[in-house]
Amino acid sequence: MQVSLIPVAIAANPAVLPGTTAIVFDVLRATSTIVTALASGYRRVYPVADAGTALALANEHGFVLAGERKGDKIAGFPHGNSPLEFIGGPDAAYHMLEINKGSSFNSNIWKTSDELVLTTTNGTKAIRWALSAHKVFTGSLLNARAVAQAALQEGLDISLVCAGTAGRFSLEDSLGAGFVLVEIIRQLSGPASGQPAASINMDDLAIAAYGLARFYHNNPLSGLFAGQHGQKLLRRGREEDLQWCAQLNRYDIAPVFMEEFITISDDLPLATH
Amino acid sequence: MQVSLIPVAIAANPAVLPGTTAIVFDVLRATSTIVTALASGYRRVYPVADAGTALALANEHGFVLAGERKGDKIAGFPHGNSPLEFIGGPDAAYHMLEINKGSSFNSNIWKTSDELVLTTTNGTKAIRWALSAHKVFTGSLLNARAVAQAALQEGLDISLVCAGTAGRFSLEDSLGAGFVLVEIIRQLSGPASGQPAASINMDDLAIAAYGLARFYHNNPLSGLFAGQHGQKLLRRGREEDLQWCAQLNRYDIAPVFMEEFITISDDLPLATH
Repeated sequence: MQVSLIPVAIAANPAVLPGTTAIVFDVLRATSTIVTALASGYRRVYPVADAGTALALANEHGFVLAGERKGDKIAGFPHGNSPLEFIGGPDAAYHMLEINKGSSFNSNIWKTSDELVLTTTNGTKAIRWALSAHKVFTGSLLNARAVAQAALQEGLDISLVCAGTAGRFSLEDSLGAGFVLVEIIRQLSGPASGQPAASINMDDLAIAAYGLARFYHNNPLSGLFAGQHGQKLLRRGREEDLQWCAQLNRYDIAPVFMEEFITISDDLPLATH
Repeated sequence: MQVSLIPVAIAANPAVLPGTTAIVFDVLRATSTIVTALASGYRRVYPVADAGTALALANEHGFVLAGERKGDKIAGFPHGNSPLEFIGGPDAAYHMLEINKGSSFNSNIWKTSDELVLTTTNGTKAIRWALSAHKVFTGSLLNARAVAQAALQEGLDISLVCAGTAGRFSLEDSLGAGFVLVEIIRQLSGPASGQPAASINMDDLAIAAYGLARFYHNNPLSGLFAGQHGQKLLRRGREEDLQWCAQLNRYDIAPVFMEEFITISDDLPLATH
């Protein structure tokens, strides 16, 4: 089995994806937020690249709306991109919307919904970029083990797709991919072995990510603190977000992107319901 | 001080280099070979991108000629790109040429020379690519500490320039850059501190290289074994080359590229002698 790492999704050629299982990482914070929302009671998350499209989709269906640009909540949006906003599940989002009644949104059109529309600077674009893969999973430290297991079950080569930040390599995405690789190798090798399994062939970026995860294994949070984007979030007072995103294997879910939405259930496409 | 890592020299825009001190890495094997040759008695190494140009330059001046393409010695060239060929210094090269009298070269035109012309697939191109930097050092595991110290003495931002392999990220070059970063941080922080110095700002690729070097610190050879190019060299029976290149801080030299040649002395340009 070949495992390749794509350091910056939108800078790469998606022709490498067909026939492989993709796992997409935007550890700070889109994929961590998606995993948290789905583990907390949301049934579907719609990753949307464009803010206007996200707003229209949420308005049309009464979905919960969340979005971020350059680390900040989009002006007028009820939710940003912090995973902490979604821990309470759909009911808590409804409550927050009630509190935010004074915003430019007419809160009367919002109701509680277990469907969430999310638009972010890098992550949602990377998820959509990966669509030509056989299957697209959403990865993070929070679900590293589960997504490794799910990807292995597909029995195909694996593409670790890092969103990156503004077209550049990002430490935390590579680290997230590395933690999934640690789990992949553990599951292939059995718990007793510390050596990479002979049946896996990693490209050099994947090997580097694996080494990075091993280096930060005892303190994943320090890895999230180290990168440029982590530092930026810290300066904006988002330390709790980093602490949340650094929890290794908190959730046992492997969210799949179903062309329009991400889900953990064998959900049907939007058009049929 | 800003430290940036360029993962694949020829794929990057050299506009980032002016005003920075560059350290170029082609750990397997060009820069390791250059460092070994200069530490072993060669006075100058000419990095040449093109094999024909290399041959002409060596013929014209009676320099020692070495070259590699895709890991193999260039057909008809007296030397390849193994550092082991240059450990004995210029005299040993002369001896080897005498032995190789039966080759397509007329060995009578070759004499011992302390000037070496080297052309390789990735490394010599990367060194020339870095020319717009304030100064271009040649880095490897063999001289990580010395090159870190020399670069710091320039007092400028530092560009860690990895040659990569055939346009792709290579583990060993990033690892070499990481070992130099370990030394840079140690020298900035003093020996007592294990923390990165506050006065250094690393981009995410540099931080990843640093983590990688820390991960492989107790066994650099395993890092050279792990990558795709290391594996290829092993399959060709070059394990001794990898063992040689994995020797951390064997040499206390910081070779500088002087537009035409690399040297460790305050040498004068070719045109003036």
